[in-house]
Amino acid sequence: MLIIKKPSLLINESLCRRNIRLMAAKALEIGVIFRPHFKTHQSALIGEWFREEGVKAITVSSVSMAMYFAQHGWKDITIAFPVNILEIEDINQLASEINLHLLLESVETALFLSGNLTLPCGFFIKIDTGYHRTGIEASNIGLIDRVLLAADAAKLSFEGFLSHSGQAYHASSREQLLQIQQAATEKLLWLKKRYLPEYPALLLSVGDTPSCSQLPLPAGIDEIRPGNFVFFDVMQMALGSCTAGDIAAALICPVVAVHSDRNEAVIYGGAVHLSKEQTLLPPYQQPVFGLVVKWHGTKWDINALLGKVSALSQEHGIIQLTEEGSKLQVGDLVAVLPVHSCLAADLLRKYYRPDGRAIETMNS
Amino acid sequence: MLIIKKPSLLINESLCRRNIRLMAAKALEIGVIFRPHFKTHQSALIGEWFREEGVKAITVSSVSMAMYFAQHGWKDITIAFPVNILEIEDINQLASEINLHLLLESVETALFLSGNLTLPCGFFIKIDTGYHRTGIEASNIGLIDRVLLAADAAKLSFEGFLSHSGQAYHASSREQLLQIQQAATEKLLWLKKRYLPEYPALLLSVGDTPSCSQLPLPAGIDEIRPGNFVFFDVMQMALGSCTAGDIAAALICPVVAVHSDRNEAVIYGGAVHLSKEQTLLPPYQQPVFGLVVKWHGTKWDINALLGKVSALSQEHGIIQLTEEGSKLQVGDLVAVLPVHSCLAADLLRKYYRPDGRAIETMNS
Repeated sequence: MLIIKKPSLLINESLCRRNIRLMAAKALEIGVIFRPHFKTHQSALIGEWFREEGVKAITVSSVSMAMYFAQHGWKDITIAFPVNILEIEDINQLASEINLHLLLESVETALFLSGNLTLPCGFFIKIDTGYHRTGIEASNIGLIDRVLLAADAAKLSFEGFLSHSGQAYHASSREQLLQIQQAATEKLLWLKKRYLPEYPALLLSVGDTPSCSQLPLPAGIDEIRPGNFVFFDVMQMALGSCTAGDIAAALICPVVAVHSDRNEAVIYGGAVHLSKEQTLLPPYQQPVFGLVVKWHGTKWDINALLGKVSALSQEHGIIQLTEEGSKLQVGDLVAVLPVHSCLAADLLRKYYRPDGRAIETMNS
Repeated sequence: MLIIKKPSLLINESLCRRNIRLMAAKALEIGVIFRPHFKTHQSALIGEWFREEGVKAITVSSVSMAMYFAQHGWKDITIAFPVNILEIEDINQLASEINLHLLLESVETALFLSGNLTLPCGFFIKIDTGYHRTGIEASNIGLIDRVLLAADAAKLSFEGFLSHSGQAYHASSREQLLQIQQAATEKLLWLKKRYLPEYPALLLSVGDTPSCSQLPLPAGIDEIRPGNFVFFDVMQMALGSCTAGDIAAALICPVVAVHSDRNEAVIYGGAVHLSKEQTLLPPYQQPVFGLVVKWHGTKWDINALLGKVSALSQEHGIIQLTEEGSKLQVGDLVAVLPVHSCLAADLLRKYYRPDGRAIETMNS
């Protein structure tokens, strides 16, 4: 049994496993490769829960994360982040151990790798489908061709096009999400058609939790890489990707002050635990930093809403209380459903199951 | 010599020591106790730099942080956070080792401590001077008296009133900041006058970096507890508490992509390094997540502004480039002045000096 005295991230293993199982089944049903993004949990143990659902290939967001999961037996890893050429030694080390896939979007990086890779390696070209964070515009065939030309075929084998439609996080309705997905898919399918004759094995890889959770997977896509769905969070709930009952991670926090005159409580649990991520969640007018529900000692109860986290400083969280929350007292523990579980998990670096068993991560 | 391949927090030791020296001198000049808040750096080594300036008493924001600094020889510590009664065992342990000062704001906590403290301990009453995060309204004499009554005098010795005018962070001019300070000071002085006859040794303790940096310290205040000034950051710069040249911490990040068509570069350096804190900084119209300047291998150059961080995701930072920034190439390193150095330092957990010597923290 876990004794909680300080902010602690609890994982509901059965919810987490169900989230994994449902996404794996969805991928299997339409026959796409399921290559989940492990940046959300960063944990070897939770990785095993994916392995039990048949997952063999994964996505990570850094060379360090690839090395951690390679050490834990993962043999097929895509680093879905533009290659950081300063880490070439570790990349070469990884290429000698596993089936490694890199992400390219510039001639400079392709030339550097051609000159510095010591072993063959696969790569995807990152396509910007409208998020405008990274990647080459799908229409920029000239640049795509130059990258392909710069990538010495003896060392770098082209495997396909990869995109992340982060703009899906700005969709305000399922219709808008569908439009975003359709526009992105159209661009990728156009590229596939164009390059398939020369590269008959090329894949289209996409991945964001809102689209993968809410929409049917479009035809012609070969691989999905969602990550957040393993825990979900209040942001995904606001986007319609999950319900509160699907959220598999909660920060358990002690109440340290109650201010009944303004229906507020203060918890030990702040920006260094939850991150400063906020989201708009109807019916609230102001952005929230988390939803606060009852903690029963071994599980949280989403049907007992105690309030919302309305403000955060370094270690403090301010809760706007519901009527049920008004009964809270100093020394009580509450469960906070985080707005962004990826960032909260990264901040906590070690999680727990209600029976007290720890879940270690690469940062523990 | 430090070889940087991944996002790394660099500390300019001489700037850091100068920031400490100036604040210590300001406190000494008017004869107030300088009890700096160590939550910003969380580092035993940087603590020594304070000790060399004559600091003997410190502030922390958690029981864990108090234990860390107690282990590193600090004998006089205020935990400026409402007592988390679940940590009573550690509090008792601390009270046996050091001169410990707690923060009370409720009868419930005072009663709990009266029944559960095993050794005598000092306490301050937290006063809400307008921030409305924690504390008792200065005018609520009834509650203050009840807390004093509930605090068993054999165990809990009342030492004074403590406040944190966090609303100073919302001041848009020095005049407004001065008004905030004056209003807060007035409330505290009124309390001092009222309770001094009964508690002739009582102290007034205040502390926020904007007021302590920008304004003369008001008469009647006995102790200051600023913290952020040790590193400063872009938020303090926006508030007028420092210039870019005073900022003593920067995140050194590799450039992984350049998008000349939209004057952007992408760095390896995201929300898990800088936090999602943002601030308004003229002349920019949109909030910034950091300022990007040139890195010369052993120091950063604030006169070579390369851009601003306009967006962050988990590991990515997007830089809107200046003309000088447009020369950046994949594989270059840049220095990011963080918006909130407390959160960035907490995220990195280990810092470096340009010669490669590490600065360990309680989270290293």
